[in-house]
Amino acid sequence: MQIAVLLYDRVTALDAVGPYEVLGRTPGAEITFVGAQAGPVRTDIGSLALTADATLDEVPSPDIVLVPGGIGQQQLMADGRVHEWLRAADTTTTWTTAVCTGSLVLAAAGLLKGRRATSHWVRRPDLEQHGATPCAERVVFDGKYVTAGGVSAGIDMALTLAARTAGEDMARAIQCGIEYDPHPPYDAGTPEKAGPEIRDQLLALKDVIF
Amino acid sequence: MQIAVLLYDRVTALDAVGPYEVLGRTPGAEITFVGAQAGPVRTDIGSLALTADATLDEVPSPDIVLVPGGIGQQQLMADGRVHEWLRAADTTTTWTTAVCTGSLVLAAAGLLKGRRATSHWVRRPDLEQHGATPCAERVVFDGKYVTAGGVSAGIDMALTLAARTAGEDMARAIQCGIEYDPHPPYDAGTPEKAGPEIRDQLLALKDVIF
Repeated sequence: MQIAVLLYDRVTALDAVGPYEVLGRTPGAEITFVGAQAGPVRTDIGSLALTADATLDEVPSPDIVLVPGGIGQQQLMADGRVHEWLRAADTTTTWTTAVCTGSLVLAAAGLLKGRRATSHWVRRPDLEQHGATPCAERVVFDGKYVTAGGVSAGIDMALTLAARTAGEDMARAIQCGIEYDPHPPYDAGTPEKAGPEIRDQLLALKDVIF
Repeated sequence: MQIAVLLYDRVTALDAVGPYEVLGRTPGAEITFVGAQAGPVRTDIGSLALTADATLDEVPSPDIVLVPGGIGQQQLMADGRVHEWLRAADTTTTWTTAVCTGSLVLAAAGLLKGRRATSHWVRRPDLEQHGATPCAERVVFDGKYVTAGGVSAGIDMALTLAARTAGEDMARAIQCGIEYDPHPPYDAGTPEKAGPEIRDQLLALKDVIF
Protein backbone atom coordinates (compact mmCIF):
# COMPACT_ATOMS: atom_id res chain seq x y z
CA MET A 1 0.00 0.00 0.00
CA GLN A 2 1.75 3.12 -1.22
CA ILE A 3 0.98 6.34 0.65
CA ALA A 4 2.14 9.64 -0.85
CA VAL A 5 2.41 12.61 1.51
CA LEU A 6 2.77 15.91 -0.33
CA LEU A 7 5.42 18.32 0.96
CA TYR A 8 5.77 21.95 -0.05
CA ASP A 9 7.45 25.09 1.20
CA ARG A 10 5.93 26.24 4.53
CA VAL A 11 3.89 23.11 5.20
CA THR A 12 2.88 22.54 8.84
CA ALA A 13 5.08 19.72 10.12
CA LEU A 14 2.57 18.06 12.46
CA ASP A 15 -0.08 17.86 9.70
CA ALA A 16 2.23 15.45 7.89
CA VAL A 17 4.03 13.79 10.79
CA GLY A 18 0.92 12.91 12.86
CA PRO A 19 -0.56 10.70 10.11
CA TYR A 20 2.92 9.41 9.18
CA GLU A 21 3.42 8.12 12.70
CA VAL A 22 0.10 6.23 12.55
CA LEU A 23 -0.23 5.09 8.93
CA GLY A 24 3.48 4.33 8.66
CA ARG A 25 2.99 1.65 11.31
CA THR A 26 0.24 -0.25 9.48
CA PRO A 27 1.45 -3.53 7.94
CA GLY A 28 2.49 -3.21 4.30
CA ALA A 29 2.39 0.59 4.29
CA GLU A 30 5.07 2.27 2.25
CA ILE A 31 4.99 6.02 2.84
CA THR A 32 6.76 8.33 0.41
CA PHE A 33 7.12 12.04 1.02
CA VAL A 34 6.82 13.70 -2.38
CA GLY A 35 7.42 17.23 -3.60
CA ALA A 36 7.60 19.26 -6.79
CA GLN A 37 11.35 18.78 -6.32
CA ALA A 38 13.04 16.16 -4.17
CA GLY A 39 15.06 17.42 -1.22
CA PRO A 40 14.57 19.29 2.05
CA VAL A 41 11.40 21.33 2.48
CA ARG A 42 11.25 24.07 5.13
CA THR A 43 8.16 23.97 7.36
CA ASP A 44 6.07 27.02 8.28
CA ILE A 45 7.72 27.89 11.60
CA GLY A 46 11.01 27.82 9.73
CA SER A 47 13.27 25.87 12.03
CA LEU A 48 12.66 22.38 10.68
CA ALA A 49 13.09 20.83 7.26
CA LEU A 50 11.40 17.58 6.22
CA THR A 51 12.79 15.73 3.24
CA ALA A 52 10.83 14.97 0.08
CA ASP A 53 12.37 11.71 -1.09
CA ALA A 54 10.66 11.64 -4.48
CA THR A 55 9.23 13.98 -7.09
CA LEU A 56 5.56 13.93 -8.03
CA ASP A 57 6.45 12.22 -11.32
CA GLU A 58 8.07 9.36 -9.45
CA VAL A 59 4.89 8.53 -7.52
CA PRO A 60 2.08 8.78 -10.09
CA SER A 61 -0.42 6.30 -8.67
CA PRO A 62 -0.32 5.92 -4.88
CA ASP A 63 -3.07 4.05 -3.03
CA ILE A 64 -3.46 6.90 -0.56
CA VAL A 65 -2.74 10.58 -1.12
CA LEU A 66 -2.37 12.89 1.87
CA VAL A 67 -2.17 16.67 1.54
CA PRO A 68 -1.10 18.43 4.75
CA GLY A 69 -1.90 22.08 5.41
CA GLY A 70 0.20 25.08 6.26
CA ILE A 71 0.47 28.71 5.18
CA GLY A 72 2.31 27.57 2.02
CA GLN A 73 -0.99 26.06 0.86
CA GLN A 74 -1.86 29.53 -0.45
CA GLN A 75 0.77 29.07 -3.17
CA LEU A 76 -0.89 25.84 -4.27
CA MET A 77 -4.37 27.17 -4.98
CA ALA A 78 -3.81 28.01 -8.66
CA ASP A 79 -4.08 25.26 -11.24
CA GLY A 80 -0.71 23.75 -12.09
CA ARG A 81 1.54 20.74 -11.66
CA VAL A 82 0.36 19.86 -8.12
CA HIS A 83 -3.31 19.97 -9.13
CA GLU A 84 -2.58 17.85 -12.21
CA TRP A 85 -0.76 15.33 -10.08
CA LEU A 86 -3.58 15.24 -7.51
CA ARG A 87 -6.24 14.74 -10.18
CA ALA A 88 -4.24 12.01 -11.92
CA ALA A 89 -3.40 10.22 -8.67
CA ASP A 90 -7.03 10.48 -7.56
CA THR A 91 -8.14 8.36 -10.51
CA THR A 92 -6.48 5.35 -8.89
CA THR A 93 -6.40 6.08 -5.14
CA THR A 94 -8.32 4.09 -2.59
CA TRP A 95 -8.34 7.13 -0.30
CA THR A 96 -7.70 10.79 -1.13
CA THR A 97 -7.08 12.68 2.09
CA ALA A 98 -6.07 16.01 3.56
CA VAL A 99 -5.32 17.52 6.95
CA CYS A 100 -6.03 21.13 7.94
CA THR A 101 -5.85 23.58 5.01
CA GLY A 102 -4.62 20.79 2.76
CA SER A 103 -8.31 20.22 2.01
CA LEU A 104 -8.41 23.62 0.29
CA VAL A 105 -5.80 22.37 -2.16
CA LEU A 106 -7.85 19.24 -2.87
CA ALA A 107 -10.93 21.43 -3.28
CA ALA A 108 -9.15 23.90 -5.58
CA ALA A 109 -8.02 20.97 -7.71
CA GLY A 110 -11.70 20.15 -8.15
CA LEU A 111 -11.71 16.96 -6.13
CA LEU A 112 -14.21 17.91 -3.42
CA LYS A 113 -17.04 19.29 -5.58
CA GLY A 114 -20.37 18.47 -3.96
CA ARG A 115 -18.65 16.68 -1.11
CA ARG A 116 -18.71 17.22 2.65
CA ALA A 117 -15.30 18.22 3.97
CA THR A 118 -13.52 19.93 6.85
CA SER A 119 -10.37 22.03 7.29
CA HIS A 120 -8.68 24.17 9.94
CA TRP A 121 -11.52 26.04 11.69
CA VAL A 122 -10.08 29.41 10.62
CA ARG A 123 -10.23 28.43 6.95
CA ARG A 124 -13.13 25.99 6.94
CA PRO A 125 -15.66 28.41 5.37
CA ASP A 126 -13.32 28.86 2.37
CA LEU A 127 -14.15 25.32 1.23
CA GLU A 128 -17.47 26.59 -0.06
CA GLN A 129 -15.78 28.77 -2.72
CA HIS A 130 -14.52 25.55 -4.28
CA GLY A 131 -17.82 23.71 -4.30
CA ALA A 132 -17.39 21.65 -1.13
CA THR A 133 -19.73 21.67 1.85
CA PRO A 134 -17.86 22.72 5.02
CA CYS A 135 -18.58 20.53 8.05
CA ALA A 136 -17.64 21.47 11.60
CA GLU A 137 -16.37 17.99 12.40
CA ARG A 138 -12.91 16.79 13.33
CA VAL A 139 -12.74 14.03 10.71
CA VAL A 140 -15.05 13.85 7.70
CA PHE A 141 -15.47 10.83 5.40
CA ASP A 142 -17.34 11.32 2.12
CA GLY A 143 -16.79 8.28 -0.04
CA LYS A 144 -13.06 7.87 -0.48
CA TYR A 145 -12.42 11.53 0.39
CA VAL A 146 -11.28 12.03 3.96
CA THR A 147 -10.48 15.38 5.54
CA ALA A 148 -9.38 16.42 9.02
CA GLY A 149 -9.56 19.65 11.02
CA GLY A 150 -6.51 21.68 11.97
CA VAL A 151 -3.00 20.30 12.48
CA SER A 152 -3.37 17.75 15.31
CA ALA A 153 -6.63 16.38 13.84
CA GLY A 154 -4.55 14.39 11.37
CA ILE A 155 -3.73 11.92 14.14
CA ASP A 156 -7.42 11.16 14.71
CA MET A 157 -8.00 10.94 10.95
CA ALA A 158 -5.11 8.54 10.51
CA LEU A 159 -6.29 6.24 13.30
CA THR A 160 -9.75 6.12 11.73
CA LEU A 161 -8.21 5.38 8.35
CA ALA A 162 -5.85 2.77 9.81
CA ALA A 163 -8.91 0.92 11.14
CA ARG A 164 -10.38 0.89 7.62
CA THR A 165 -7.18 -0.29 5.92
CA ALA A 166 -5.71 -2.59 8.58
CA GLY A 167 -8.55 -3.38 10.99
CA GLU A 168 -9.67 -1.99 14.33
CA ASP A 169 -7.30 -4.14 16.39
CA MET A 170 -4.34 -2.78 14.46
CA ALA A 171 -5.55 0.80 14.93
CA ARG A 172 -5.90 0.20 18.66
CA ALA A 173 -2.42 -1.36 18.84
CA ILE A 174 -0.92 1.63 17.04
CA GLN A 175 -2.75 4.00 19.38
CA CYS A 176 -1.29 2.16 22.37
CA GLY A 177 2.13 2.07 20.68
CA ILE A 178 2.22 5.85 20.31
CA GLU A 179 0.61 6.17 23.76
CA TYR A 180 -2.13 8.38 22.34
CA ASP A 181 -4.13 8.88 25.51
CA PRO A 182 -4.38 12.64 25.21
CA HIS A 183 -4.62 14.77 28.33
CA PRO A 184 -4.11 18.37 27.27
CA PRO A 185 -3.59 20.64 30.29
CA TYR A 186 -6.35 22.98 29.01
CA ASP A 187 -9.64 22.49 27.22
CA ALA A 188 -9.06 25.05 24.50
CA GLY A 189 -8.81 23.02 21.32
CA THR A 190 -11.68 24.70 19.46
CA PRO A 191 -12.63 28.37 19.17
CA GLU A 192 -15.82 27.65 21.13
CA LYS A 193 -13.83 26.16 23.98
CA ALA A 194 -11.00 28.71 23.87
CA GLY A 195 -13.44 31.61 23.95
CA PRO A 196 -14.03 34.73 21.85
CA GLU A 197 -10.81 36.53 22.81
CA ILE A 198 -8.50 33.76 21.59
CA ARG A 199 -10.79 33.09 18.60
CA ASP A 200 -10.53 36.73 17.49
CA GLN A 201 -6.75 36.82 18.05
CA LEU A 202 -6.32 33.79 15.81
CA LEU A 203 -8.77 35.03 13.17
CA ALA A 204 -6.73 38.24 12.98
CA LEU A 205 -3.71 36.11 12.03
CA LYS A 206 -5.67 34.34 9.28
CA ASP A 207 -3.46 35.42 6.39
CA VAL A 208 -0.25 35.30 8.38
CA ILE A 209 -0.18 31.79 9.77
CA PHE A 210 -3.15 29.80 8.45
CA MET B 1 14.75 31.58 24.26
CA GLN B 2 16.82 28.95 22.47
CA ILE B 3 15.39 25.43 22.34
CA ALA B 4 17.62 22.60 21.17
CA VAL B 5 15.90 19.44 19.94
CA LEU B 6 18.29 16.50 19.63
CA LEU B 7 18.04 14.41 16.47
CA TYR B 8 19.70 11.05 15.92
CA ASP B 9 19.39 8.09 13.59
CA ARG B 10 16.04 6.28 14.07
CA VAL B 11 14.43 8.93 16.26
CA THR B 12 10.61 8.86 16.40
CA ALA B 13 9.42 11.82 14.33
CA LEU B 14 6.33 12.72 16.37
CA ASP B 15 8.34 12.84 19.62
CA ALA B 16 10.22 15.81 18.18
CA VAL B 17 7.56 17.37 15.94
CA GLY B 18 4.72 17.45 18.49
CA PRO B 19 6.66 19.71 20.90
CA TYR B 20 8.13 21.67 17.96
CA GLU B 21 4.66 22.57 16.78
CA VAL B 22 3.75 23.89 20.24
CA LEU B 23 6.96 25.41 21.61
CA GLY B 24 7.93 26.82 18.21
CA ARG B 25 4.83 29.02 18.35
CA THR B 26 5.65 30.65 21.70
CA PRO B 27 6.87 34.25 21.34
CA GLY B 28 10.65 34.57 21.19
CA ALA B 29 11.27 30.84 20.82
CA GLU B 30 14.10 29.89 18.53
CA ILE B 31 14.14 26.14 17.97
CA THR B 32 17.25 24.49 16.60
CA PHE B 33 17.36 20.84 15.61
CA VAL B 34 20.82 19.59 16.54
CA GLY B 35 22.70 16.39 15.81
CA ALA B 36 26.14 14.85 16.19
CA GLN B 37 26.47 15.86 12.54
CA ALA B 38 24.36 18.42 10.71
CA GLY B 39 22.19 17.14 7.86
CA PRO B 40 19.24 14.83 7.28
CA VAL B 41 18.46 12.24 9.96
CA ARG B 42 16.32 9.21 9.10
CA THR B 43 13.47 8.51 11.52
CA ASP B 44 12.61 5.08 12.90
CA ILE B 45 9.94 4.08 10.38
CA GLY B 46 12.48 4.92 7.69
CA SER B 47 10.46 6.91 5.20
CA LEU B 48 11.05 10.39 6.56
CA ALA B 49 14.17 12.41 7.19
CA LEU B 50 14.24 15.44 9.49
CA THR B 51 17.13 17.86 9.14
CA ALA B 52 19.58 18.69 11.91
CA ASP B 53 20.53 22.30 11.15
CA ALA B 54 23.37 22.49 13.64
CA THR B 55 25.94 20.31 15.36
CA LEU B 56 26.02 19.86 19.13
CA ASP B 57 29.08 22.13 19.32
CA GLU B 58 27.17 24.95 17.67
CA VAL B 59 24.47 24.99 20.36
CA PRO B 60 26.33 24.61 23.66
CA SER B 61 23.99 26.47 26.02
CA PRO B 62 20.31 26.36 25.01
CA ASP B 63 17.61 27.50 27.43
CA ILE B 64 15.62 24.32 26.83
CA VAL B 65 16.93 20.92 25.80
CA LEU B 66 14.50 18.33 24.42
CA VAL B 67 15.49 14.71 23.83
CA PRO B 68 12.94 12.76 21.77
CA GLY B 69 12.72 8.97 21.90
CA GLY B 70 12.88 6.27 19.26
CA ILE B 71 14.57 2.91 18.83
CA GLY B 72 17.83 4.74 18.00
CA GLN B 73 17.96 5.80 21.64
CA GLN B 74 19.57 2.44 22.36
CA GLN B 75 22.71 3.66 20.58
CA LEU B 76 22.87 6.69 22.88
CA MET B 77 22.97 4.91 26.21
CA ALA B 78 26.77 4.65 26.47
CA ASP B 79 28.73 7.63 27.73
CA GLY B 80 30.08 9.75 24.92
CA ARG B 81 29.67 13.02 23.03
CA VAL B 82 25.87 13.22 23.40
CA HIS B 83 26.02 12.65 27.15
CA GLU B 84 28.80 15.23 27.48
CA TRP B 85 26.75 17.75 25.53
CA LEU B 86 23.64 17.05 27.62
CA ARG B 87 25.51 17.43 30.91
CA ALA B 88 27.19 20.65 29.77
CA ALA B 89 23.95 22.13 28.37
CA ASP B 90 22.12 21.15 31.55
CA THR B 91 24.34 23.40 33.63
CA THR B 92 22.68 26.44 32.03
CA THR B 93 19.21 25.24 30.91
CA THR B 94 15.99 26.55 32.36
CA TRP B 95 14.29 23.27 31.42
CA THR B 96 15.83 19.90 30.55
CA THR B 97 13.19 17.74 28.90
CA ALA B 98 12.57 14.46 27.14
CA VAL B 99 9.74 12.67 25.38
CA CYS B 100 9.22 8.90 25.35
CA THR B 101 12.47 6.91 25.59
CA GLY B 102 14.44 10.13 25.33
CA SER B 103 14.23 10.18 29.13
CA LEU B 104 16.40 7.05 29.23
CA VAL B 105 19.17 9.01 27.49
CA LEU B 106 18.87 11.83 30.04
CA ALA B 107 18.93 9.24 32.81
CA ALA B 108 21.92 7.41 31.37
CA ALA B 109 23.76 10.73 31.19
CA GLY B 110 23.22 10.99 34.94
CA LEU B 111 20.74 13.85 34.85
CA LEU B 112 17.73 12.15 36.46
CA LYS B 113 19.38 10.63 39.53
CA GLY B 114 16.94 10.66 42.42
CA ARG B 115 14.29 12.34 40.29
CA ARG B 116 10.76 11.33 39.33
CA ALA B 117 10.42 10.74 35.59
CA THR B 118 8.36 8.99 32.96
CA SER B 119 8.99 7.38 29.57
CA HIS B 120 7.18 5.24 27.00
CA TRP B 121 5.17 2.73 29.06
CA VAL B 122 7.07 -0.21 27.52
CA ARG B 123 10.41 1.19 28.70
CA ARG B 124 9.35 3.12 31.80
CA PRO B 125 10.67 0.53 34.30
CA ASP B 126 14.15 0.85 32.75
CA LEU B 127 14.48 4.32 34.28
CA GLU B 128 15.17 2.69 37.62
CA GLN B 129 18.46 1.19 36.39
CA HIS B 130 19.73 4.73 35.99
CA GLY B 131 18.70 6.01 39.39
CA ALA B 132 15.42 7.68 38.45
CA THR B 133 12.02 6.90 39.96
CA PRO B 134 9.58 5.78 37.23
CA CYS B 135 6.14 7.42 37.45
CA ALA B 136 3.11 6.19 35.54
CA GLU B 137 2.06 9.71 34.57
CA ARG B 138 1.77 11.33 31.15
CA VAL B 139 3.86 14.39 32.01
CA VAL B 140 6.20 14.58 35.00
CA PHE B 141 7.82 17.74 36.37
CA ASP B 142 10.61 17.40 38.92
CA GLY B 143 12.31 20.74 39.33
CA LYS B 144 13.52 21.80 35.90
CA TYR B 145 13.43 18.21 34.60
CA VAL B 146 10.34 17.45 32.56
CA THR B 147 9.56 14.09 30.96
CA ALA B 148 6.64 12.81 28.91
CA GLY B 149 5.21 9.37 28.16
CA GLY B 150 5.32 7.76 24.73
CA VAL B 151 5.42 9.64 21.42
CA SER B 152 2.19 11.70 21.40
CA ALA B 153 2.62 12.69 25.08
CA GLY B 154 5.15 15.28 23.94
CA ILE B 155 2.27 17.49 22.79
CA ASP B 156 0.76 17.55 26.28
CA MET B 157 4.19 18.16 27.80
CA ALA B 158 4.89 21.03 25.44
CA LEU B 159 1.56 22.74 26.17
CA THR B 160 2.26 22.48 29.90
CA LEU B 161 5.74 23.89 29.37
CA ALA B 162 4.44 26.66 27.06
CA ALA B 163 2.18 27.79 29.90
CA ARG B 164 5.21 28.03 32.21
CA THR B 165 7.38 29.93 29.71
CA ALA B 166 4.78 32.08 27.93
CA GLY B 167 1.69 32.05 30.15
CA GLU B 168 -1.55 30.11 30.22
CA ASP B 169 -3.33 32.33 27.70
CA MET B 170 -0.59 31.73 25.16
CA ALA B 171 -0.72 27.97 25.76
CA ARG B 172 -4.48 28.02 25.23
CA ALA B 173 -4.12 30.09 22.04
CA ILE B 174 -1.55 27.64 20.68
CA GLN B 175 -3.82 24.72 21.56
CA CYS B 176 -6.66 26.38 19.63
CA GLY B 177 -4.29 27.25 16.77
CA ILE B 178 -3.28 23.62 16.31
CA GLU B 179 -6.89 22.59 16.95
CA TYR B 180 -5.82 20.17 19.64
CA ASP B 181 -9.23 18.95 20.70
CA PRO B 182 -8.38 15.27 20.54
CA HIS B 183 -11.08 12.75 19.71
CA PRO B 184 -9.35 9.44 19.04
CA PRO B 185 -11.75 6.91 17.50
CA TYR B 186 -10.77 4.35 20.15
CA ASP B 187 -9.89 4.51 23.82
CA ALA B 188 -6.73 2.45 23.63
CA GLY B 189 -3.95 4.89 24.44
CA THR B 190 -2.56 3.01 27.43
CA PRO B 191 -1.89 -0.70 27.96
CA GLU B 192 -4.61 -0.77 30.62
CA LYS B 193 -7.16 0.65 28.18
CA ALA B 194 -5.97 -1.36 25.15
CA GLY B 195 -6.13 -4.62 27.10
CA PRO B 196 -3.73 -7.49 27.79
CA GLU B 197 -3.62 -8.85 24.23
CA ILE B 198 -2.37 -5.61 22.68
CA ARG B 199 -0.16 -4.94 25.70
CA ASP B 200 1.57 -8.31 25.26
CA GLN B 201 1.90 -7.85 21.48
CA LEU B 202 3.67 -4.55 22.03
CA LEU B 203 5.84 -5.83 24.88
CA ALA B 204 7.01 -8.62 22.54
CA LEU B 205 8.27 -5.91 20.18
CA LYS B 206 10.15 -4.14 22.96
CA ASP B 207 13.62 -4.47 21.43
CA VAL B 208 12.42 -4.06 17.86
CA ILE B 209 10.52 -0.79 17.89
CA PHE B 210 10.79 0.82 21.35
